[in-house]
Amino acid sequence: MARYDFASDNTAPVAPEAMEALAAANSGYASGYGTDHVTRRAADLVRELLDADCEVRFVASGTAANAISLAALCRPFEAVLAHEHAHICTDETGAPGFFGQGLGLIPLQGASGRIEAAPLARALDEPDVSYRQSPAVLSLTNATEYGTVYVAEQLGALIGPAKAKGLSVHLDGARLANAAAAGFDLKAIRTLGVDLLVVGGTKAGMPPTEAVAIFDRGLARRFDARLKQAGQLPSKGRYFAAPFIGMLESGAFVRHAAHANAMARRLAGLTPFTIRHAVEANGLFVEMDQPTLARLHAAGWFAFRFLDGSVRFMCSWATTTEAVDELGACLRSLA
Amino acid sequence: MARYDFASDNTAPVAPEAMEALAAANSGYASGYGTDHVTRRAADLVRELLDADCEVRFVASGTAANAISLAALCRPFEAVLAHEHAHICTDETGAPGFFGQGLGLIPLQGASGRIEAAPLARALDEPDVSYRQSPAVLSLTNATEYGTVYVAEQLGALIGPAKAKGLSVHLDGARLANAAAAGFDLKAIRTLGVDLLVVGGTKAGMPPTEAVAIFDRGLARRFDARLKQAGQLPSKGRYFAAPFIGMLESGAFVRHAAHANAMARRLAGLTPFTIRHAVEANGLFVEMDQPTLARLHAAGWFAFRFLDGSVRFMCSWATTTEAVDELGACLRSLA
Amino acid sequence: MARYDFASDNTAPVAPEAMEALAAANSGYASGYGTDHVTRRAADLVRELLDADCEVRFVASGTAANAISLAALCRPFEAVLAHEHAHICTDETGAPGFFGQGLGLIPLQGASGRIEAAPLARALDEPDVSYRQSPAVLSLTNATEYGTVYVAEQLGALIGPAKAKGLSVHLDGARLANAAAAGFDLKAIRTLGVDLLVVGGTKAGMPPTEAVAIFDRGLARRFDARLKQAGQLPSKGRYFAAPFIGMLESGAFVRHAAHANAMARRLAGLTPFTIRHAVEANGLFVEMDQPTLARLHAAGWFAFRFLDGSVRFMCSWATTTEAVDELGACLRSLA
Amino acid sequence: MARYDFASDNTAPVAPEAMEALAAANSGYASGYGTDHVTRRAADLVRELLDADCEVRFVASGTAANAISLAALCRPFEAVLAHEHAHICTDETGAPGFFGQGLGLIPLQGASGRIEAAPLARALDEPDVSYRQSPAVLSLTNATEYGTVYVAEQLGALIGPAKAKGLSVHLDGARLANAAAAGFDLKAIRTLGVDLLVVGGTKAGMPPTEAVAIFDRGLARRFDARLKQAGQLPSKGRYFAAPFIGMLESGAFVRHAAHANAMARRLAGLTPFTIRHAVEANGLFVEMDQPTLARLHAAGWFAFRFLDGSVRFMCSWATTTEAVDELGACLRSLA
Repeated sequence: MARYDFASDNTAPVAPEAMEALAAANSGYASGYGTDHVTRRAADLVRELLDADCEVRFVASGTAANAISLAALCRPFEAVLAHEHAHICTDETGAPGFFGQGLGLIPLQGASGRIEAAPLARALDEPDVSYRQSPAVLSLTNATEYGTVYVAEQLGALIGPAKAKGLSVHLDGARLANAAAAGFDLKAIRTLGVDLLVVGGTKAGMPPTEAVAIFDRGLARRFDARLKQAGQLPSKGRYFAAPFIGMLESGAFVRHAAHANAMARRLAGLTPFTIRHAVEANGLFVEMDQPTLARLHAAGWFAFRFLDGSVRFMCSWATTTEAVDELGACLRSLA
Repeated sequence: MARYDFASDNTAPVAPEAMEALAAANSGYASGYGTDHVTRRAADLVRELLDADCEVRFVASGTAANAISLAALCRPFEAVLAHEHAHICTDETGAPGFFGQGLGLIPLQGASGRIEAAPLARALDEPDVSYRQSPAVLSLTNATEYGTVYVAEQLGALIGPAKAKGLSVHLDGARLANAAAAGFDLKAIRTLGVDLLVVGGTKAGMPPTEAVAIFDRGLARRFDARLKQAGQLPSKGRYFAAPFIGMLESGAFVRHAAHANAMARRLAGLTPFTIRHAVEANGLFVEMDQPTLARLHAAGWFAFRFLDGSVRFMCSWATTTEAVDELGACLRSLA
Repeated sequence: MARYDFASDNTAPVAPEAMEALAAANSGYASGYGTDHVTRRAADLVRELLDADCEVRFVASGTAANAISLAALCRPFEAVLAHEHAHICTDETGAPGFFGQGLGLIPLQGASGRIEAAPLARALDEPDVSYRQSPAVLSLTNATEYGTVYVAEQLGALIGPAKAKGLSVHLDGARLANAAAAGFDLKAIRTLGVDLLVVGGTKAGMPPTEAVAIFDRGLARRFDARLKQAGQLPSKGRYFAAPFIGMLESGAFVRHAAHANAMARRLAGLTPFTIRHAVEANGLFVEMDQPTLARLHAAGWFAFRFLDGSVRFMCSWATTTEAVDELGACLRSLA
Repeated sequence: MARYDFASDNTAPVAPEAMEALAAANSGYASGYGTDHVTRRAADLVRELLDADCEVRFVASGTAANAISLAALCRPFEAVLAHEHAHICTDETGAPGFFGQGLGLIPLQGASGRIEAAPLARALDEPDVSYRQSPAVLSLTNATEYGTVYVAEQLGALIGPAKAKGLSVHLDGARLANAAAAGFDLKAIRTLGVDLLVVGGTKAGMPPTEAVAIFDRGLARRFDARLKQAGQLPSKGRYFAAPFIGMLESGAFVRHAAHANAMARRLAGLTPFTIRHAVEANGLFVEMDQPTLARLHAAGWFAFRFLDGSVRFMCSWATTTEAVDELGACLRSLA
């Protein structure tokens, strides 16, 4: 199994800082359903990370975090604007529609996973008609699915027109740590107009846990009931919160992501194949024909052909330079 | 916080066997979404526990496990028969209706948390009319909310008439370990006609994780898609599965529950208050007036007044004889 | 079939005023989806009836009107307070939960179908906890299911405490015409704090159609999209609206209801059986044992045993004095 | 308003045969919720039309009929295959996802509204993965949105591969009368493998009413409860059923559609603009630039630019040859 390490950034084990925090949290009794001292501490650390006075909750999966957030912002007869290849559109089995009782997804285009201004403007300009789900939310992803990173100004340029039309804003930060490591200023989110932010734990090296930061305090009322009903308010909440303590107190959250990003850049430097998207976070996407991909698989390296047709290699906190160099050598041998 | 240990069996920390298994699973890469070797091993152990060739999945919370199961068995315009004080009726914020798009819950009565034959028969005899949600599922709980335990024959006597009417059967085993420790034969479930069984991890001493055993194989098709859409198929599935390995391989699953049950019996022997329900599992329910309860709280012992008006004390794997004896002394001082 | 006329007020045919309006509306082309001149005129007449500047929509059934209204006011993890025997609780197959994605119903008690102050206060005083669906809406019904009528002050006395706690208010007026004919001032609704009102068409003598009056204008945004998605914005909307024109322009709406109420009172005067509830609208509820009811059925008169155990007789615009007198004679013969 | 008659086939009034049947049904008492004699007679006539022993129900709108049907066939974590411009995909405000709790829609391509074999085959060949909604239903529309008509063999060629993969089949017959008038054999549906068929009433000249024919009898169990919960089982069901009696007994159902089709063909013969799709049913789609369309509107003729960019003219039972000729003259003047 050792070589399957570029298929995704979620095949890696949990980082030691997170495991140690789990062990540290495992002492004595704690009150249930997120009212415990561990959860409070983790929430404080997330607020500190974001320099924001937001409410924070912890849930078990990114799919749940995203879908519950969208359901909080969008009514069933409305829609969410998102990049056509956003995770919520392509990889979550319709979870937004399930949690949001049929809410719609309107796919927008844009190079390298970033929504472009023109298709957003067109979507916002569509007349409100009763036979169509009109947009109520703009969903953004940073880092994007294609390993690129929005800077705060780019997000602001998309959020501005959306807010002007009365839309709410969701930011999927499954790879927020990677974005931060690439220079995205997490403390800028506070002023961008994001209503709900998902701070990814899993892909950052934690066990299954994601933080939801509620910037719009009006949404916080009965949010625990919302989570409980959705199966996302476990009695032993401290075990969802603890990994964030370990990763945030130690700085490992961004430091591990910086390593993952560096590994992707290193691999980019080694590959002879055409690189499809700028390598700003922890993913590398190259052009590769099917026979070559088959030979790569035969050599023991697993990698996916992604939605845009390129082949994706993901790095994580656990990716080693040795593995990158070995894969690089293999890629050169296939070219 | 040290004395708040009788409020619930989910305020305890995680048992060492589960923590060790988490650490053991945290090595190397693993494929995502429940397709990994850890999940396979844990599923095998659950099958072994039940002596059944069922499918097994792992999810983050009992609420999710129950609600997803009920949604799999019951259409929105149908209803679930359950004890009026079952967890699904009283403590899950309407999760069955949320996951099941409005499915109904029909409360049945019965002493000490056990459904009685007569109200079940009456519910099954109701004519099927279009303006009411007719029953499609019988939901049972073992051990019950009142710390009593059904033996297999008792479950069979309820399941029989339900199956005869075409209903499916869900068994909420949030405290299945306690039931097993009390003599309930887990290997009997296989022949009882249960379609979906929830095997509780959290209350048995694990971090947030529950196993769903799918006895009706016809339900297994696309169950992973069902879980993914419901936010319950995390990429790093091994961390939901590993605790079961630690608890089942070592026998701690039932052994710890036996300890919890013994602690409840010990407390029962010490209490001067009238005991409301037979102490068969890990809970003790006593009659206590409000001033006395207030004095108990003032003495630093937290306990709830439960749905039937009695005061509940729950024991867990972590409850010590010292704590029981200290609480017993306190109770005697209050009587 | 001629004698089955006391089973319900919806077994009657459509009143001539409504039929004539349907025919009158059936001329020339009309724009779709409720944007037509017929719908506009009918909405104006409903506003005039209520002396209120509300938005008005027309839908096909009372179940849809109620469930869509409740879904607009209550989130899935919240609940609706309603009389335990309200139509939404007992006769709509869980439609509120279906349209409202699992929203809860909290039954309140009260004699003769009227919610009483004490159980309402208790429900409003319940602490907001994450494991329970806390109330967000108070649902009232006028005339009630038991043929009694709230006067405006009584409604106000219930609405006041609910509004003080931040709840919204839904008024099910399936028999609003009967309430009006009994003295309930429809023009008082405007100041009572009702957010959404259903003005019943069907039981008032129309074909399937109900009006929804939206008093809280903030709810009106995208309400047509809400209706369209719910299958309740038919292209040929004029045929849902026209009957209201016929009934409101002519005054038949209240006049026919007054007749129905008078028929119920006349029957009350003839029955030798104990009358269970004050006869204020168009229903009579009497105490009758099962053998007597069987003999009544054998004599060709169909009537239901209702939720409170009494036997219900409903009158409508089409009920004749001859039928009432004949039934009265039959009842006397059975006593 | 007189000239707005080509915007849609649902802006026309109700045909006299349907109005007369409404009046005829409006006599005496009738039992509620679709159990009445009028509904039985109408259901018999639909069965006769289809030469099939199916169950039949009547609902208020095509959106409801389609969405309820799809929800009966497809679970939330599954998807419906449909033409990308099918009404369920483009004009129903996400109703399938609302009724089906987030079920997915997978758009397929094909010229002139007909699904083509290749994209269907590709969709059916997609591997079943947990992160995507895999297809469970094939939805077809006849006549199509572009005024073309499938013959039975063409439908069979699409249904065959879908059934081989275990999918169910929904047929949206909002314009089934037009398809029949164009030569589609309604009696062939019975053997094609259609599970649920919507027989359009509204566009055929009726007030809001659609019939749902349930070919798969296994789906019929508790279908009335399904409808009631969905707000589509009105107490006075006879008024949804009666129009079908008038239209089917008299033959007007197909005869009026034949007239509508003939009007479209006549208009096709008069237009100087390029015709985009074969004129097989009651719609004409022509290529027209924006300035010309503006001049058409200025001349008092309303017509939509449709999803494929062409301009659509719809004819109905009420379209007169005079209107067609007048519009034809106008079109020639604009060319």
